[in-house]
Amino acid sequence: MPRKTTQRGPYAKTPRTREAILESAFEVFSRGGYLSSSMTEIAKGAGMTLPGVTNHFPTKAVLLEAVLRQRDIDANVHLEGRIGADMLKGLIAVAARDESDREITRLFAILAAEATTDDHPAHAYFRERYELILNAVGKAFKEAEELGQLKPGVDAVGAAQGYIALSDGAQLQRLYGVGVRNQRELVNGYLENLLVKPLFD
Amino acid sequence: MPRKTTQRGPYAKTPRTREAILESAFEVFSRGGYLSSSMTEIAKGAGMTLPGVTNHFPTKAVLLEAVLRQRDIDANVHLEGRIGADMLKGLIAVAARDESDREITRLFAILAAEATTDDHPAHAYFRERYELILNAVGKAFKEAEELGQLKPGVDAVGAAQGYIALSDGAQLQRLYGVGVRNQRELVNGYLENLLVKPLFD
Repeated sequence: MPRKTTQRGPYAKTPRTREAILESAFEVFSRGGYLSSSMTEIAKGAGMTLPGVTNHFPTKAVLLEAVLRQRDIDANVHLEGRIGADMLKGLIAVAARDESDREITRLFAILAAEATTDDHPAHAYFRERYELILNAVGKAFKEAEELGQLKPGVDAVGAAQGYIALSDGAQLQRLYGVGVRNQRELVNGYLENLLVKPLFD
Repeated sequence: MPRKTTQRGPYAKTPRTREAILESAFEVFSRGGYLSSSMTEIAKGAGMTLPGVTNHFPTKAVLLEAVLRQRDIDANVHLEGRIGADMLKGLIAVAARDESDREITRLFAILAAEATTDDHPAHAYFRERYELILNAVGKAFKEAEELGQLKPGVDAVGAAQGYIALSDGAQLQRLYGVGVRNQRELVNGYLENLLVKPLFD
């Protein structure tokens, strides 16, 4: 029988317990990916027993999904209600935010790579995530084209797809500490080569 | 005492054995990365016992390095003796070659991501590899600038770094089967936005 979660009573600490497990899982996954991690390791990181963890998250796959969903919530804040070059400006803000958090960057880099196999539990999540991002950024570039913000001859579809590819690759370079330009400069430089007017004065 | 390898006699099959181990390791690493793989699994894939494998490759880390070095040899063929836009044309050939081999693409994507932690045995390999590639591509873009092949205002250093980032990200998109443009189209489109003349007529 599933336990009921309430604000008071014997189960009041459930949210805190879940949070501790999610934090430990985030830390463990971002260090070595999903495949090489164990629930025992995650339980240990949360200061709990294995049954204590599986009571909240029955499998490692369920826990992985919870970790991923939790990290996706705040990206939209920067992008809502924006169109064209203004939306692209919002993307730069997201890039700057991502750049400040090395652990999130590593979590997504390592999971996105290992989830490329069809049978990985996060495969569908990452495929859908890419499709959502491709659509959103593609829309922004097409709006920019219609608003006359794109340089003549620039392929809006390819430019959007390239933008996402460049962002992913820039994160990897940053994790290795290679390259003279930082992530924000790379993304900004990429857009400046495509847009009629620079995004920032 | 280390065994001697000769062309004849009881150890004539050493090169073939090493090859079988490397092939199995390649297959195992490209499926699940390095961290979650075991020497036992690799031995099984090569139809050998664990001591049979460790006799040739004492640790999993040594085996990983051998797999990585083996795959780096042929990239230079496309790039030697080329400068400026001509070198960039060679890079397109390398991208086309990489695109045709899904397993190599996955091997490098997954290992590059998990090796971002300092203590991963392939960390130094990937950092050095990035630095080599950044230098080579950076040189090509600077030559293109000097030869008047770059559009005015394009930052050669950022363009080179962005090129490598875009290539890495494009490989990930390809592994997920997302996006309308393929890897070659993305790379080519990126370069066309930066160069005065298209690379291909």
